[in-house]
Amino acid sequence: MPLTSAQIATFHREGWLFLPEVFGEEEVELLREEALSIYDEHRPEVWREKSGAPRTAFAAHTYNEAFRLLGAHPRLINPVEQIFGEHVYMHQYKINAKSAFTGEVWQWHQDYGTWKRDDGMPEPKAMNISVFLDEVMPINGPLLLVPRSQTAGDLKASHDTSTTSYPLWTLDEDTVTQLVEEGGIVAPIGRPGGVLLFHGNLVHGSAGNITPFPRKIVYLTLNAVSNYIRTPTRPEFIAHRDFAPIVPVDDDALMRLARSHRQAAE
Amino acid sequence: MPLTSAQIATFHREGWLFLPEVFGEEEVELLREEALSIYDEHRPEVWREKSGAPRTAFAAHTYNEAFRLLGAHPRLINPVEQIFGEHVYMHQYKINAKSAFTGEVWQWHQDYGTWKRDDGMPEPKAMNISVFLDEVMPINGPLLLVPRSQTAGDLKASHDTSTTSYPLWTLDEDTVTQLVEEGGIVAPIGRPGGVLLFHGNLVHGSAGNITPFPRKIVYLTLNAVSNYIRTPTRPEFIAHRDFAPIVPVDDDALMRLARSHRQAAE
Repeated sequence: MPLTSAQIATFHREGWLFLPEVFGEEEVELLREEALSIYDEHRPEVWREKSGAPRTAFAAHTYNEAFRLLGAHPRLINPVEQIFGEHVYMHQYKINAKSAFTGEVWQWHQDYGTWKRDDGMPEPKAMNISVFLDEVMPINGPLLLVPRSQTAGDLKASHDTSTTSYPLWTLDEDTVTQLVEEGGIVAPIGRPGGVLLFHGNLVHGSAGNITPFPRKIVYLTLNAVSNYIRTPTRPEFIAHRDFAPIVPVDDDALMRLARSHRQAAE
Repeated sequence: MPLTSAQIATFHREGWLFLPEVFGEEEVELLREEALSIYDEHRPEVWREKSGAPRTAFAAHTYNEAFRLLGAHPRLINPVEQIFGEHVYMHQYKINAKSAFTGEVWQWHQDYGTWKRDDGMPEPKAMNISVFLDEVMPINGPLLLVPRSQTAGDLKASHDTSTTSYPLWTLDEDTVTQLVEEGGIVAPIGRPGGVLLFHGNLVHGSAGNITPFPRKIVYLTLNAVSNYIRTPTRPEFIAHRDFAPIVPVDDDALMRLARSHRQAAE
């Protein structure tokens, strides 16, 4: 299903779009199980909170079949190509855990701030499109977005290397306060299988999670092919160097894999 | 207005009760201004987060006229005396800040766990009744309550002195998970002036606040006079030793003070 012109207009005005029920139970169940087994692995792509709980797993599309299919899924690739009017490649791929009880904060930031400063990305012609693997509730650390903040462009940021285990270019309190006075804050919530996409300059963050409910979200960072990164400084598994356009898989590829896994287990 | 028998039944079953719009704009505005000026003071009663932002101010009823009147306000004293069937005294008095951007977590705990272990309180015949000074929203670190968890009694707890600047007897993850499976989680939200009361054994906590919206709440801990603390270990300004029953002030006392302040300022 392509985005409607109303959806595209909303995206350009508000800077974000939520699409409920894009993936079905079977597909999400497989991804959730695979995510847990990836978090159990000790490999450089899996980063942890101070508590030892998983924080994020990078590049799972390169070493896990289910996440490979998700990373080339037409329900994710097509909407972004539609908005950019261009083919896209995978700039970054993360499964963020926001673990039960110990999931830590993500300070207020713009994604493009990091892509530009750390990776040498020329323009904000890249964006995150994400898939909810667990129910995102008001109480388990939902993503908080500042609508329309993408119109502020690339804001001054400081490199925060101390708050969490993940270095991030973060915004100061005065800037966030002013943008929130203008645009407010929204917290998109919803069932597993929902999809959220947002502009690379949209200001966002998330609080910690003290509940028993984990809140895993997969983020594909899709970059327009012409906007490939020029001066990467981060490891290859964080900021990818394969700029080839993604060739989408069949729409039912992930569901077929889920069914074959289930049959093998029965 | 006394509590109705339906409200009292709800309290005994669920362990908490929210009463909207108990205090009016004028009253809350005065309290909010006075709270900010207290936070600016450097005195032993004002505790701070690691960031330096205020976390809580103790015993403001002993050094601030507005909070003195609030601490003896019939709209707070009467409902608790009605539930306990006995006169109450002030065991503890806190203005919790949950500051914008930097307000830190309160780990899952039961209040009575600390009152018993640290103060030698014989029975859970004390409870918090709180007044919202700011709007409490889903996104600015609302109190999270586990309904009906008060029926579990006094649970095993560990003394957490490292997570935040406030030492607290906290519950383990398995215990919280089980209680949440049974009772869920509620996050009472509402406008300034609302009042929340909850059982001393009700399990609760709150996440950090990364938004520009502060979330100040005043907590009166009212203890039945017969249940006075036997073996206090904490300073007098935290666990009070004046066990005399509170004599309520007039219902309009706080509003009259607010008006006289406003007239003086005009």
